[in-house]
Amino acid sequence: PVSEQSPHQTYFSAEPLDRLSVKRPDSDWIRTRQQDPGTVYLLFHKLSPMIREGDSGGTGPADSRLCRFTYGELKELLERPGSQLVFLGVERSLPPCPTADPQKPPDPAPRAWFALGSDLDQSELLQLSKEPNKCCFPKNPHRDLLRLGEEEAGLVSHSRSVLAWHSRYSFCSTCGGRSRVEEAGHKRSCENTACISHQGVHNTCYPRVDPVVIMLVLHPDQSQCLLGRKKVFPSGMFSCLAGFIEPGECVEAAVRREVQEESGVLVDRVWYVCSQPWPMPSSLMIGCLAVAVTTEISVDQDEIEEAKWFTRQQVIDSLIGGSGAAFMVPPRQTIAHQLLRHWTGLSSNL
Amino acid sequence: PVSEQSPHQTYFSAEPLDRLSVKRPDSDWIRTRQQDPGTVYLLFHKLSPMIREGDSGGTGPADSRLCRFTYGELKELLERPGSQLVFLGVERSLPPCPTADPQKPPDPAPRAWFALGSDLDQSELLQLSKEPNKCCFPKNPHRDLLRLGEEEAGLVSHSRSVLAWHSRYSFCSTCGGRSRVEEAGHKRSCENTACISHQGVHNTCYPRVDPVVIMLVLHPDQSQCLLGRKKVFPSGMFSCLAGFIEPGECVEAAVRREVQEESGVLVDRVWYVCSQPWPMPSSLMIGCLAVAVTTEISVDQDEIEEAKWFTRQQVIDSLIGGSGAAFMVPPRQTIAHQLLRHWTGLSSNL
Ligand SMILES: Nc1ncnc2c1ncn2[C@@H]1O[C@H](COP(=O)(O)O)[C@@H](O)[C@H]1O
Ligand SMILES: Nc1ncnc2c1ncn2[C@@H]1O[C@H](COP(=O)(O)O)[C@@H](O)[C@H]1O
Ligand SMILES: [Mg+2]
Ligand SMILES: [Mg+2]
Ligand SMILES: [Mg+2]
Ligand SMILES: [Mg+2]
Ligand SMILES: [Mg+2]
Ligand SMILES: [Mg+2]
Ligand SMILES: [Zn+2]
Ligand SMILES: [Zn+2]
Repeated sequence: PVSEQSPHQTYFSAEPLDRLSVKRPDSDWIRTRQQDPGTVYLLFHKLSPMIREGDSGGTGPADSRLCRFTYGELKELLERPGSQLVFLGVERSLPPCPTADPQKPPDPAPRAWFALGSDLDQSELLQLSKEPNKCCFPKNPHRDLLRLGEEEAGLVSHSRSVLAWHSRYSFCSTCGGRSRVEEAGHKRSCENTACISHQGVHNTCYPRVDPVVIMLVLHPDQSQCLLGRKKVFPSGMFSCLAGFIEPGECVEAAVRREVQEESGVLVDRVWYVCSQPWPMPSSLMIGCLAVAVTTEISVDQDEIEEAKWFTRQQVIDSLIGGSGAAFMVPPRQTIAHQLLRHWTGLSSNL
Repeated sequence: PVSEQSPHQTYFSAEPLDRLSVKRPDSDWIRTRQQDPGTVYLLFHKLSPMIREGDSGGTGPADSRLCRFTYGELKELLERPGSQLVFLGVERSLPPCPTADPQKPPDPAPRAWFALGSDLDQSELLQLSKEPNKCCFPKNPHRDLLRLGEEEAGLVSHSRSVLAWHSRYSFCSTCGGRSRVEEAGHKRSCENTACISHQGVHNTCYPRVDPVVIMLVLHPDQSQCLLGRKKVFPSGMFSCLAGFIEPGECVEAAVRREVQEESGVLVDRVWYVCSQPWPMPSSLMIGCLAVAVTTEISVDQDEIEEAKWFTRQQVIDSLIGGSGAAFMVPPRQTIAHQLLRHWTGLSSNL
C-alpha cells in the first residue's frame, strides 16, 4: 500500500498551526503568549466565528475571512465571565536557512493563536472590530462555515469543536459537580476534590470527538452507487449514507451496520478513503468505499426519505453540474462529495 | 482500491449479533425479549465479565469462556439498584433454506442477548453461577480480556464500553442533574426537564467512543520501523506509537502530530490499514502505516521511555518469537501486533 498516492486533503482538516500541546499545562508560558502584541485572537459568539464577508457576494472560493484581534483589543473581554479561551497553537517555524547570517539574533518566539468564545450580545462584540458594519457572526454553520479558505477552515474546526465541548460539558458527568477549565482550554477537571474522576486518567476530562462512518456503497457490479436523502436536504440532493460508530465496533463493522439499518443493503468489503473533522459539533468523518452484496433497498423511514442506485455517468453529470443532472451532489467541502469524485476518478477541485 | 484484499479482522471487533438498534426504543419488545427463557445474559461485576477459566491453564487460544445466564437466574438481580442492563442484539438469522418444509412453523424470534452490570459483592454474584468455584471476575482487563474467543471478545467490547460509559456519565454534563437510562442501555437523558439538552440531538446523551490513531512509522527508506516503550510496558516490549485524535483533526493530521510529539520524527504519507475497538474503556484504534521524512529521535519523556528504529528482520525475529529477538512484540490480540505483521508480510495467526 505504501506506493499509492496520498488521498486529497479535506475541508476543515488543514492544520496551519503547530498545536504545541506540550505547552498547554504551562500557564505562565500561556499567559505570556496571550499578552504578546503579536498574538492573534479569533472571536466567537457562542459557536460562531466573527467573519468579514468578501465583496464577491458569496460566490468566490473563499469569500469570508476570519476577523483577527490583538490582546489589546480583547483585554477587557478576556476578563468577563462567560469568556472561554482556547490555545490553538503557534505558527510553524520555517526550517533554519543555511545561508542565514550567524550574527543575526535568533528568531523571536513564533506567533501564537487563540480562540476566544463569548456569550455577550453580538452587537457588543461587533463593536470590538474596526469595521463593525462589514463583519458578522454567521447564523447557519452548515452553510456559512463552508465559505472560508482552507487554513481558516482548519482553525475553525479546532476552535468550534472545543468551544462546543465547553458549552455542553461544564459539569462533571461522574458526580454532577462543576468543572474547571485547565490546559489552556483543552481539559476540564471536577472542582469536587472527593470526585473519583481525580483517580487515574479519564475521558470525562477531555474534549469529545465522535467518530462517524460515511460510505459510498457500490453495486455488486460496481457500475452504480447507493445514495440517500434525508428530509432536511435541499430538494434534489442525494448523499452518502453515514452514521455514528458505536461502542465496540471497528470501522468496517459500523459501515456494514449503518448501511443495513438505513437502506437494507448488505455490504461485504470496505475500504478507507480519507477522513474529515466536522465541527458540528465535533465529529470525525471516516470516509469509505464499500461493496454491496445485495441490491434491494428498504429504507429506514425515520432517518432516510429515499435511497436509490445511481449510475457512474449520473454521478459524473451531477459532479460536472449540468442542468440535466439526475440529482444534486453535496457541496465540494463535504467528504461525501470527495468520495463521489474519488469513485468516478474526477480529480478534486477542492 | 476496490480490488485489494480486505484487511484482517482484529480482536474485539467481531459482531456475532445483529445489534437491532431500531428495537432499542421499543420498551415493550425489550421487556418481552428480556423475559424469554431462551435469552442469554452476560454478567459483569462493574466492568469485569464473569468467566469460566479453561482447563489448559491459560495458554490455549481461547482459554476463558463467558458465563451465560437465563432470565430466571437473574430475575432478582435485575430488580436491584445498581444493576445496569444493556441490550446487545439478537443472533443473526440464517438465510431461509430453499428446501425447507413449507408446513413447518416459521422460525421463533431470534435469541436475544443482554449484558447485566452489577456493583454488588463479587462473592454474591458468583453464587448465581452453577459452578461458583470455576468462575471468576478477572482483575486485569489488559491481560485477562485477551483470552476469550473472537466472538466472545466482540460481545465484551460492546458490553464493557457501554457499561463504562454508564459508570462515568450518570450525571448530565450540561446542567449537572441526574440522567436516566433509555433505549435499552444505549442512551441517557437528563431528568431535569428544563435542561437545554432536551432541545435538539446532542452527543451528551450517547455513549462516548474515543478515536485513537496507532501507527507503524517506517523509515524514509522503508527498511526500518519506529517503535517506542512506555514505562508501564513489560521489560523488553516495544510497540507502535499512538494517541487520541483531537477535535478538528483528520486521521492523517493526528498521526503526524502524535508521532512528532512522542518521537520528534516528522511524517509525510499516511495509510489506513485496519481498526479495532478497545474497550478500556471505549477507544476506537485506527491503525495506520506512515512514512517518516526525518530519522532523528527525541522522545517526549512524559509518555515514552525510549523509542528506536528496528530493522524488518528484527521485527520478523520478534514476531516469530525466537530467544535471540531484539525486543518483545505486543500480544497478537493488539492492533499494534497486526500492524507489525502487516508490514513484514507475515500472515496473521489471529
Ligand atoms: N454521538 C452522537 N451524537 C448525536 N447523535 C447520536 C450520537 N450517537 C448516536 N446518535 C443517534 O444517532 C442518530 C443519527 O443516526 P446515525 O448518524 O445514522 O447514526 C441521532 O439522531 C441520534 O439518535
Ligand atoms: N479521551 C481521552 N481519554 C484519556 N486521555 C486523554 C483523552 N484525550 C486526551 N487524553 C490525554 O492524552 C494522554 C495520553 O496521550 P496520547 O494517547 O498520546 O494522546 C492522557 O494521559 C491524557 O492526558
Ligand atoms: Mg445516518
Ligand atoms: Mg447510528
Ligand atoms: Mg443511521
Ligand atoms: Mg501516546
Ligand atoms: Mg495526545
Ligand atoms: Mg501522545
Ligand atoms: Zn466530579
Ligand atoms: Zn441536564
